[in-house]
Amino acid sequence: MAITTHFALILALLCSFLVPYTPKPAQPVKPTYITTPTGYLMVLRQGDDVLANLKQVAIQEKIPSASFTGFGFVHPTFGFWNAQKKDYDPKSFRDTEMVSMTGSIAWKENQPALHVHAAVSDKNFNTFGGHVLALEVGTGSVEITITVHKKRLTRIVDKPTGATVLSLD
Amino acid sequence: MAITTHFALILALLCSFLVPYTPKPAQPVKPTYITTPTGYLMVLRQGDDVLANLKQVAIQEKIPSASFTGFGFVHPTFGFWNAQKKDYDPKSFRDTEMVSMTGSIAWKENQPALHVHAAVSDKNFNTFGGHVLALEVGTGSVEITITVHKKRLTRIVDKPTGATVLSLD
Amino acid sequence: MAITTHFALILALLCSFLVPYTPKPAQPVKPTYITTPTGYLMVLRQGDDVLANLKQVAIQEKIPSASFTGFGFVHPTFGFWNAQKKDYDPKSFRDTEMVSMTGSIAWKENQPALHVHAAVSDKNFNTFGGHVLALEVGTGSVEITITVHKKRLTRIVDKPTGATVLSLD
Repeated sequence: MAITTHFALILALLCSFLVPYTPKPAQPVKPTYITTPTGYLMVLRQGDDVLANLKQVAIQEKIPSASFTGFGFVHPTFGFWNAQKKDYDPKSFRDTEMVSMTGSIAWKENQPALHVHAAVSDKNFNTFGGHVLALEVGTGSVEITITVHKKRLTRIVDKPTGATVLSLD
Repeated sequence: MAITTHFALILALLCSFLVPYTPKPAQPVKPTYITTPTGYLMVLRQGDDVLANLKQVAIQEKIPSASFTGFGFVHPTFGFWNAQKKDYDPKSFRDTEMVSMTGSIAWKENQPALHVHAAVSDKNFNTFGGHVLALEVGTGSVEITITVHKKRLTRIVDKPTGATVLSLD
Repeated sequence: MAITTHFALILALLCSFLVPYTPKPAQPVKPTYITTPTGYLMVLRQGDDVLANLKQVAIQEKIPSASFTGFGFVHPTFGFWNAQKKDYDPKSFRDTEMVSMTGSIAWKENQPALHVHAAVSDKNFNTFGGHVLALEVGTGSVEITITVHKKRLTRIVDKPTGATVLSLD
């Protein structure tokens, strides 16, 4: 291989970092959800970020507030609140069946604010679960049923506990 | 301290038992739920009794029957039916993330009759669950989405099994 | 016993295979579900096949697509996808509280196609769960809340993963 070819390859490689990454640019983007009588039905595929997609539909459809349930095959990260550290102790799992996901969509500082809990099971059918910090779709899909409410709701910090809670005001 | 002061204190203490207990009398009572297109969205806070609050909304809103899902941070008591004893063997947990709650509201002898199952996870993300006998909100909140049905439903005793079941008649 | 009796018994036995099996023919058939503002509420009893009943309501009510949640007392069979074998590794449990069931109804080759996940707990309140292959109601009942969508949806095979997924097209 000539030095110029090497140079061209390195240049192309360097340039690739300058261009913003666009996933699957060759395929037309498929809709990830449809409208239903009670809200939305969302289906996500392998590699999709569940929390990012829920935030996106909240913004796109201007959802005032919503509850959702879901299930599928996932790589989850759970967090358990450490009152001393004032932060979540995290733990990640891979290749698990999500047996249930329960959560809500509200707003905080004009950004969608999610609260999501889930339970997953491994190949021995043992289950694990908790507060969801991150959730990626594994080899399969995730189906989410979103029930939309009319009132715009926000999340606030609950004074006595320091926990972020859903305000109904 | 004079004897009369002692006497007054004891009298005050005795009288305090005669007055019905009113929780948090100094604070204005915040609504625990709002109306949604499909029913109600309830948010409970630390120390709240989940089952008592669900029964209260059933009475207050004259809910004919309903299904609900929920999640949050709780101190639960589960019970497993002991066919010999004809009663539940109970077990309590503290400071757990409720990863899912599923249940229904119906009526029995003109009182709201709940049927509630839940799964919770501890700080190691291990999960436990079952039939809910008692459920108190822990350091945080519990969010409940209630889907109301139109038909007034009652719970009856299923003859072959002795179990209390939801009648659709 | 005379040979003719033997012959009659064998004949009767053979004939029994020719007649389609009708469960509980002597009892009047009770409805297993009612209509609700958002879909259907189904209550199944001891011995009922949950998946068969969900398929039946899908056909009978011509449900285009739906999401559902449920809970109760069950004998479940879970399966974990074995990518090598291209099949599910199954495991059955008996006498468990179903703490949550989450699933959806769609269609494949004009037959109802279900996707169901569930978590169950045993008498020690330990939980197990996964993809549901079979589900029979135990000593008690199963309550299912079905939320109906308007669009007829089908399940397709997802090319990259080989998994069957819900198509929104």
